[in-house]
This record gives sequence, C-alpha cells and structure tokens, in this order.
Amino acid sequence: MENKKENFSEWYNEIITLAELSDKRYPVKGMNVWLPYGWKIMSLIDSIVRRAVDKRNFQEVNFPILIGRSMLEVEFEHIRGFENEIYWVTKGGKEKLEEELALRPTSESAMYPMFSLWIRSHADLPLKIYQIVSVYRYETKHTRSFIRIREIHFFEAHTAHATYEDAEAQMEQYKEIWREISGQLCLPYFYDQRPDWDKFPGAMYTIAFDTVLPSGRSLQIGTIHQYGTNFSKNYDIKYLKEDGTFDYAHQTTYGMSERLLAAIIGIHGDDKGLVLPPDVAPIQVIIIPIPGAGVMEYARDVENTLNSINIRVKVDDRENYTPGYKFNDWEMRGVPLRIEIGEREVKNRTITMSMRNIQGKVTIERSKIIYEVPDMLIKIREKMMENAQKVFRDHVFRATKLEEFNREGLITAFWCGSKECSDRIEAETEKSALGFMVDSRETGKCVVCGKDGKMAVFSRSY
Amino acid sequence: MENKKENFSEWYNEIITLAELSDKRYPVKGMNVWLPYGWKIMSLIDSIVRRAVDKRNFQEVNFPILIGRSMLEVEFEHIRGFENEIYWVTKGGKEKLEEELALRPTSESAMYPMFSLWIRSHADLPLKIYQIVSVYRYETKHTRSFIRIREIHFFEAHTAHATYEDAEAQMEQYKEIWREISGQLCLPYFYDQRPDWDKFPGAMYTIAFDTVLPSGRSLQIGTIHQYGTNFSKNYDIKYLKEDGTFDYAHQTTYGMSERLLAAIIGIHGDDKGLVLPPDVAPIQVIIIPIPGAGVMEYARDVENTLNSINIRVKVDDRENYTPGYKFNDWEMRGVPLRIEIGEREVKNRTITMSMRNIQGKVTIERSKIIYEVPDMLIKIREKMMENAQKVFRDHVFRATKLEEFNREGLITAFWCGSKECSDRIEAETEKSALGFMVDSRETGKCVVCGKDGKMAVFSRSY
Repeated sequence: MENKKENFSEWYNEIITLAELSDKRYPVKGMNVWLPYGWKIMSLIDSIVRRAVDKRNFQEVNFPILIGRSMLEVEFEHIRGFENEIYWVTKGGKEKLEEELALRPTSESAMYPMFSLWIRSHADLPLKIYQIVSVYRYETKHTRSFIRIREIHFFEAHTAHATYEDAEAQMEQYKEIWREISGQLCLPYFYDQRPDWDKFPGAMYTIAFDTVLPSGRSLQIGTIHQYGTNFSKNYDIKYLKEDGTFDYAHQTTYGMSERLLAAIIGIHGDDKGLVLPPDVAPIQVIIIPIPGAGVMEYARDVENTLNSINIRVKVDDRENYTPGYKFNDWEMRGVPLRIEIGEREVKNRTITMSMRNIQGKVTIERSKIIYEVPDMLIKIREKMMENAQKVFRDHVFRATKLEEFNREGLITAFWCGSKECSDRIEAETEKSALGFMVDSRETGKCVVCGKDGKMAVFSRSY
Repeated sequence: MENKKENFSEWYNEIITLAELSDKRYPVKGMNVWLPYGWKIMSLIDSIVRRAVDKRNFQEVNFPILIGRSMLEVEFEHIRGFENEIYWVTKGGKEKLEEELALRPTSESAMYPMFSLWIRSHADLPLKIYQIVSVYRYETKHTRSFIRIREIHFFEAHTAHATYEDAEAQMEQYKEIWREISGQLCLPYFYDQRPDWDKFPGAMYTIAFDTVLPSGRSLQIGTIHQYGTNFSKNYDIKYLKEDGTFDYAHQTTYGMSERLLAAIIGIHGDDKGLVLPPDVAPIQVIIIPIPGAGVMEYARDVENTLNSINIRVKVDDRENYTPGYKFNDWEMRGVPLRIEIGEREVKNRTITMSMRNIQGKVTIERSKIIYEVPDMLIKIREKMMENAQKVFRDHVFRATKLEEFNREGLITAFWCGSKECSDRIEAETEKSALGFMVDSRETGKCVVCGKDGKMAVFSRSY
C-alpha cells in the first residue's frame, strides 16, 4: 500500500479501491458506483444525521430531481452561482421539451415555490424539513472520489421562521447538531465565516465546518447558511402575523455530503488501510476463529451474544484463508475491534480482543463481553478523536507574517477581511482565506496591510 | 370525504391530499413532492424490503443516475422498449455534451458494463445486488399519484448466476421474498406470467404480482424477470468455469415501486381515510389524553413503556383540539391503534384501546400493555389481510364465455395464449390478458377460439 504521509493522494485513491468503497470505472465521467461496503458506511453516516435532526423536529421529505428553468430563474444572484454547472434535460423521448429542466444542483428553487404554498400564517412556522438525495454539478475541475464529483450524495436541511432572531437561533442549533455528528464521526474542525465573495449564492452569510487532511489541504465538510429574507422575497414566502399584517419568512439551510466519508478516510486511515469510527463501521466486531476443537461453535455463540446487544458483528468463516490473511483483510477494511478465538479461549472461557487503533491485545472473560465489548468500542472512539485532534493541531500554525504561511496546513492569522489582502496571500503562498474564525474573539493587525483585523484561517483547500 | 365505493378515483386522490402523503402542485408535470408522512410510510416499506433481501445475501449498491447513449444502445430490443420515454440530458452548463446522457429508466445498461468488469470466474457468482433509487419515464399517459408518474421510487434487484438452473432458483427465491413482503403489507395478489408481447424488454420471461383495486382495475405491484443470457451476451458478462472454459452469466431482476403504497391506500382505506398495516404505520399507536387530573403524566408513562419495546407511539398533546377532533384526525391518517386515557383509566390503572379496523373498544390493565399492545397489532394485521383477501375474492370472477368478462374485476378463464384471442377480448370488454396464472395447473378450451388452453387472468389494468 502507498505511504499515507508521503503520497497522500495516491494512498487515498488506493484505499478506496482496495476497501471496495466505490468504483471509478463507471463509463460516465465524474460519476462513480457506490459499492456495498462504501454505501453501507455512507448509510450509517446518514442514519447518524437523521437521528440528530429528527429529534430536533426536522421532517424528512423528498423533492423531485427536475427543476424548470423558470423556477430556477425566479431568482437573482442564486442561479448565477450555478449556471455553468447545471445539467440540462432538453428532450423527453424524441421530443424537445417545452421548458428545459435542470437536474437539481441544490434544492432552493425546487422547494421554495412549495414553501410559498405551504406557509400561510405564523402557525405554520417554524417549518423544518430535510432530504437526503443526489445533487448534480457539471464540474469542470479535476474530480476526486467523495471530494469533487458530478453526482453528490447530499443532505440538505431547509427552515423557515417568523423572525430573524428565530433564524439565528436555528443557526445555533445547527452547530449543536454538528457537534453531535462530528463527535460520532471523530472529526475535528473549525467554524469559519466565509468571506462575502465565497458565501453561498443568495445567502446573507455562510459558516463552514472546515477540517484538514494529512496533505495539509483543508476540506469543507459542512456549511450552514443564513438567508434572511433574500429567498423569501424572491419566492414570495409570506405569512400572516398575529397582528394581521404580513411578513416574509426568514430562512436558513444546512448542507453536508459524502465529504464526511472522505474526511473519515483521510483523517483516520493509516498504512494498513481504513480505520472506521465504531458508529459508522458496517462491521464493528470481526471474529476470527483459529481452527481447533469447539472453536466455531464458541465463535457463533459469541456472535449471537453480541448480536443480541445490537453490535454489528460477523464471524469470518471463510475456509480458504488463513487467520493471518483475515487479520490483514479486516484491518484494511477498518473494522474497529477484532476478536480471536482459538482452543485456548474455548478452554479458558475467554476471548482475545485487538483494537484497530490501540496497540496490544486484551483477554477478557466470556461472561463479561456484553459489558466490555461496548465499553471498548467507546474507548476506540475516544482514542480516534484524541488522535484526530492531535493531527489537527499538528496541521494548524499561527502566522504573524507572510513568510510563515508556507507550512503545510491551516494558517491562522489576523486579517482585515479585504479581498486584496487574501489575494496577496494567495499569490505568494497558494493559500486563501477560509474566513474569520467564528469562535475567536481575538483582534490584531492584519498580517498583510496592518489595518485592524480579526483572527482568520487560511489554507489551500480541496 | 368522497365515497370510496362509488368514486374510487376521486376518493383516492382526496385521501392522498388529506393525509398529506404527496403534493401534486409541484410545477414540473408528473412529478410530485413526497410529504413527511408519505415519505415515512414509503421508507418503512423500503425497510421491509431491505430486511427481506439483506437476509438472503443481497448487497445494497448505488449506481449513477446518468447513462451514456452508447451504454444504452449496446443493446438490442431492450432500449426500444424505452426509447420514447427517456429524459435526455444534452447540456452541461452552457456547453453541449459530447454524448447525450439518459436519466435511468431502469438500470440494466448502467449496471451490466460493471458486471462485465466484476465477474471474472465462477467464484464471483452468484452476484446479488439491489438499489433503491428514482427512475424516470417521460410518460405521455395520464399520470396518477403513486401509480403512473414520471419520477418513480424504485427497488431493483439484479443477480448473475453460473447456470440457468441457478437463475431459476433465484426466481423461486424472489417469490419467497414477495410472500414475506406482501404478508407484512397485507396485499393479496396473483402471480401471472406476462404474454411475450408484454414482457420486460430483453427478458426471456416476466412474472408479475398483480393485485386489484376496488375500482375493479388490476395493479401490477411487482415483477420478476428471467433474462437468461440475453443481456450477458450483449454486455459481455462472461465467467471462467472450473473446467477452464468460459460461459455467459445467467441473469434475473426484481422490480417494485411506490405502487406498493398505492395498493395499500386503495385496498385498505375506507370512507374515514387511510388504514395502514402496523408494519408501515409511521405512528402505530396514538395516545389521546382526555383532559383530567394526572392524565398527561399517565399518558407519557404509557408512551415511554411502549417506546421501550420499539413501538412507534405518540401522545397527541395538542391543546387547541378536542379529543373528538383528534380521534377523526388519526383515523383519517390510518393509525392502527388508538389508546384513550382519561381520569377513569388513571384511577383504575387501565388503558382503553380502539382499533382502526376492528369494531369496539377494549380495556386492559396498564401492567399488561407490553404484551397486549404488540398482540393487538398482530391481530390488526391479520384482520387486515383477511379483509383484503375477501375484497380480492369479491373482485375475481371465473368466466366460461366472453359475455362473462364484463364484471368489474379480474376475470379468470382458459386461454390459448394467442394475441388474437386477447385482442378480441379487449375489443369487446376492454380487458386484456395479464397472462397465465403461474400457480394454476388447470387446462381447458380457450374461451375465445376453443383451442387447448391454460388458466389465465384478464383485466383492465392501471
């Protein structure tokens, strides 16, 4: 396998192929096939997201994929942000369509004409919906599995509120949701408020969750947007207030994609292969029988016990492979915990556990597995987060002058907020402003022009 | 509400709107918005399907939506079956695409080029995959929610086997899967082998699962197809046999859509609204508090208990609605079981249950709900199946001469299998041959021409 530190890009592509996550050989450019193992991981990520939003009263919907040109063009600056990237359906059968239809690049223009019908009075607010669907971008840049592709697996939440304050409270709730999700996926991040020239087309402002891959390049893994009344004014989303007057609804959105999977692969993997957080591992515990008397029966019994407490467990009963081969195979696929069972374990009524990300083996009593295995999965997750935080910190550097921007990673520095200063930094270091750090209150002089500034993050991004 | 018996079509449309299953007002023709309640029911149907195939070693994948024209046109009669119904993407941004791309009408032509790469030797077989995705048909006929639409929510399983016998065994397994699913959805059906002129384009033969709606028209709710080597020869899907020679793989598929939901609505609903089988009800048990001392606390306690045994339960705590309004509202939405809790229940430590599809109320002890509520949900399901079977039988008529084809429903009769005789029946009665009944071994003289025939089913179909 490629060396992750030295050839991150090659390592990344190789592990996706080896672990059978997706297949790039599909004949349409920039569109990959999700293979069973990759799709299962993504579905588990989706479940985590669903749980986090469902319990906060979001409702799942599913909107059509096709959007009429007139629906998209209702609008002002929004469409201009996408017009070069839209796939257009122009024919049905052998007929030319009366109106060209876009494959959704995102769903504002599909949803908001319906919001305008659904929202009549203050009693209809807040409206909080989401969908998990594919969106489409005719990307001209170089594509990369799970990072830059033409068919994107997309989570999009859309809300409408009576007041700006309610919409701002929603933005805070998004952060709470993200904290929960990122904890389960073991992903460290910064909150950055994107500069105006880099915000979502049509938004008042955009906050991104940015992480960093071992290549030193940043990866945007989620964004939340405050729309204010920018969209509701264009799509006529009004509600009757208690005082009898009408007002436009205040809107927000939250978007994430399979970049979550890209981040998991890139941040946690090592030279043996994937390392999966237990919450998204299709197989959390793999049991490898070391051939011997009573071993298979004992292994099945342990499997049943773990199954009964909802652990995703599997006995590798393949006959033509050695235990050694199986160890390597499941390590490569990132299974968090391995249980070895041989005659010694059967005789002593024990099991022997090896963790994907923690050195050493641990032998425990058979009778305690329903406590110790779930405990160990939590320890594995904690250790993954700890390691990821360390790698993250190792890739963040504080700079006080321009020359210090050349290190590989995220650079934090004071910045005045101007495009000129960000462009100057980019010209000299290939890094540009991700934005002001939302959680920092520090102020100081811009590292380029010396004017008053705030703490910002800069990077070369994917 | 419309009268179901007298105005089935109007009743069907009305209940979809009232129960908020989907919204037809979306501005692109033939494409509807899945609303939260409808989407949740469909997702529960999908879960049932997933469980049934996962445990039989099918693996879930996800293929791109776009298919190059050259991939589709690899092929012989298959494409001709769809060419008038394909949506074509011809532009990316402002550029004309080099090759036109189809929105998948079904995924053979997307998957089989990959099968050709994946399948090398007998050890790679059987290959059993499925996906749950949207497929697209530029329908020119009149559209109808969940029955005939342009964006179809689709389950498609695809398999490849070493021999024809293995593929035939897979066809039998499909029937076993369908028996399991139809039991949970409480849907009666016939297995019909479609006439050659009505089989899936490219298949050797097609067996359909047909049910009947109260309108008397039949609804195809699933199909399984034996492809033999028809596709593998065209897509070059070959494998190395143990004897060192090569052979083409034998293939099958299984398709279903949201017509499952259409059947549930049409077959089980009544003049009060939906009646949902417990396995697909987003809310299986609704608790209605009748205001009084200690009622809400008691209701929450019952809710927690039912939650803990994985029953989908909800307390209707809305303050501005009367219990009577709530009874009607949840009946309309098809909730299988209602629990009423008032001061009397609190005092006596009981609950009072009403079933959506069984007359009368039942009062049970609070301490027994974890046994009696799940039991009652099973009884509700059994009763739904029993009723549905009865309605099904009431719509099936045996005919021995042409004049008897005029009854509203499915007609069974002996048929020689010729298109001429089916056309003659259609010309005189608007009913045409669904096909020979797979489970019947009866033989007799064709009801039209008098030649030797087998038992067949005829209907006017959706």
